[in-house]
Amino acid sequence: MFTIEDHTHMSRALKLAELGKYTTAPNPRVGCVIVKDGLVVGEGFHYRAGEPHAEVHALQAAKERAIGATVYVTLEPCSHYGRTPPCAEALIKAKVGRVVCAMQDPNTLVSGRGIQMLRSAGIEVDVGLLEQDALDLNRAFIKTMRSGLPFVQLKLAGSLDGQTALKNGQSQWITSSQARQDVQAFRAQSGAILSTSKTVIEDNASLTVRWSELPASIQAIYPEKALRQPPRVILDRKQTLTSDLRFFQSQSESIIIAPSNEHFDELDWSKQLELLPIFKTLAKTYSINHLWVEAGATLSRSLIREGLVDELILYIAPKLMGNDGRGLLGDLGLTSLEQAIDLDIKEVRMVGKDLRIIANPISKE
Amino acid sequence: MFTIEDHTHMSRALKLAELGKYTTAPNPRVGCVIVKDGLVVGEGFHYRAGEPHAEVHALQAAKERAIGATVYVTLEPCSHYGRTPPCAEALIKAKVGRVVCAMQDPNTLVSGRGIQMLRSAGIEVDVGLLEQDALDLNRAFIKTMRSGLPFVQLKLAGSLDGQTALKNGQSQWITSSQARQDVQAFRAQSGAILSTSKTVIEDNASLTVRWSELPASIQAIYPEKALRQPPRVILDRKQTLTSDLRFFQSQSESIIIAPSNEHFDELDWSKQLELLPIFKTLAKTYSINHLWVEAGATLSRSLIREGLVDELILYIAPKLMGNDGRGLLGDLGLTSLEQAIDLDIKEVRMVGKDLRIIANPISKE
Repeated sequence: MFTIEDHTHMSRALKLAELGKYTTAPNPRVGCVIVKDGLVVGEGFHYRAGEPHAEVHALQAAKERAIGATVYVTLEPCSHYGRTPPCAEALIKAKVGRVVCAMQDPNTLVSGRGIQMLRSAGIEVDVGLLEQDALDLNRAFIKTMRSGLPFVQLKLAGSLDGQTALKNGQSQWITSSQARQDVQAFRAQSGAILSTSKTVIEDNASLTVRWSELPASIQAIYPEKALRQPPRVILDRKQTLTSDLRFFQSQSESIIIAPSNEHFDELDWSKQLELLPIFKTLAKTYSINHLWVEAGATLSRSLIREGLVDELILYIAPKLMGNDGRGLLGDLGLTSLEQAIDLDIKEVRMVGKDLRIIANPISKE
Repeated sequence: MFTIEDHTHMSRALKLAELGKYTTAPNPRVGCVIVKDGLVVGEGFHYRAGEPHAEVHALQAAKERAIGATVYVTLEPCSHYGRTPPCAEALIKAKVGRVVCAMQDPNTLVSGRGIQMLRSAGIEVDVGLLEQDALDLNRAFIKTMRSGLPFVQLKLAGSLDGQTALKNGQSQWITSSQARQDVQAFRAQSGAILSTSKTVIEDNASLTVRWSELPASIQAIYPEKALRQPPRVILDRKQTLTSDLRFFQSQSESIIIAPSNEHFDELDWSKQLELLPIFKTLAKTYSINHLWVEAGATLSRSLIREGLVDELILYIAPKLMGNDGRGLLGDLGLTSLEQAIDLDIKEVRMVGKDLRIIANPISKE
């Protein structure tokens, strides 16, 4: 059904989509390539919410050469009037001949409608080319569409023997500056950064993206003037945050989850943490589909125990610190090895002198 | 000084030497290739202490074709009468034309003598081709020759957060069966296996090499009938070992370091552990130049703290167990991050589902 040429052009569309990695949130990353008689006549990608979709950029570049052309797009063209008119309509107006989509829209309410509009207009549509790559590209967006919960990445950092700080609290710095730069790149990709008032106060953390600390490879595709600061979501159950903190000196948006926040007034504040309703509200009310978590052992442990973590990013410094410091997750009270939290290691690499392990928690159910 | 052909033949000699990896201890691994008019006319490697050296095997294969030939050998030919006559003499008798050695004899008392004997007999000798590979090949033998201490590999195994057992002692099994097979391969390569009476008693461990558990790649070059059992060295300061233990059911040699062992009678038995004199005696009296250590946190911690570990082999299972179990090294009582034990990571790979990290402790001096 798909030719080698189809693969080549869709690969290019996926590459283009990635250029929106740091800017499209909460929108999906989408790339588009228009090909006429074997020649690329237009390309585009979605850059930022509210700005034109990938197809519109590509059609603008292709002009009248779009007539009868093949359009490669990493996501089903939209069929509804949102902040921009529907792309399916624009493609019909441009009289394209064929549309190849890597995947359908993950929103089950509209999935297939854009394809149907195109087919009704007599345009040939093929779906599913490099679908897995398209799913990976927007895994956070897709998860939220399907489940109503954000995709959650939990960052942990410690020594080879699992200590995140000494008994006296000293933790700066166990990992290398390269690892901390790497963290900046993850923050920049996220939809929001989640932490607790305890971390904000103890570390005097601002939890912002500092462009100057991003790796050069990211700076190259992400100019400083385009810098997007993901909102910072802080759990502050006991309302201990004060306005004099460095945290509030930043222009970056903050969402404080505290008894004074009307969006969370259904929470039972007497409970330790009610993470599931918090996450649902973050997705629904704040359009946050990708949460990057940097917090202490208590929140990290709760997130893992409640099965809310999609991916662990674990930085391990080449040090041994003994078992009398502070552990990554604190105490777990295990009485049998079957109770251990099992992980599936996806990737291991060196970041400076540190190891970076990416792993998925394995559900026990 | 060395041609591409020289490199090719020395590489082959190094490969041959490796075939003795599981059998030569305490002798070094040595390989030899004899080349006449561009053709390989003889090859050999040292297989087992007391059996012929690599050069002798290669000369036997080459016969009269050795006259005027070039001999590639990974270690300087010996010059003394040991269990076998000196190889330098054999090469002179065979009237070879040129000898290329990867490295000199690491024993400073005899280093250069074999080369001198050959040169005195009018044979051209070149030294230092692929020297680093030759040094790596026999790093344990070389360390002991130079320092009088064995090369020490310490095995540790635990979870991603540094736990080697639960609080209740449960530890079987944190790591996978593939990791335990990998341990068998390390035992098989070692000169001796070091542990404590506590580990022998608590784990009812026999600390032997089980041929059936070796990886197939090793079984292929190491037939079951050739199986060598490295001696098991057990620290038994309080003489708690009893003859009914499974440990004593094996045919494998054991060296018990206890007040009743005359070789260690200079030790101060009131002290916790006197590792340095023990290691010196193991090298000198027992010809042990390569120790593989499998023990609990107490011995592991002491070895690292006293700077006696050359290489750490760390198996990390993809699990999180909390900080309330037993840590890899127990408590270290650190009050500042500068006191942490720093490591230099040499290699990271997956062994089954586990990570295996090979690292060298970095001396603080």
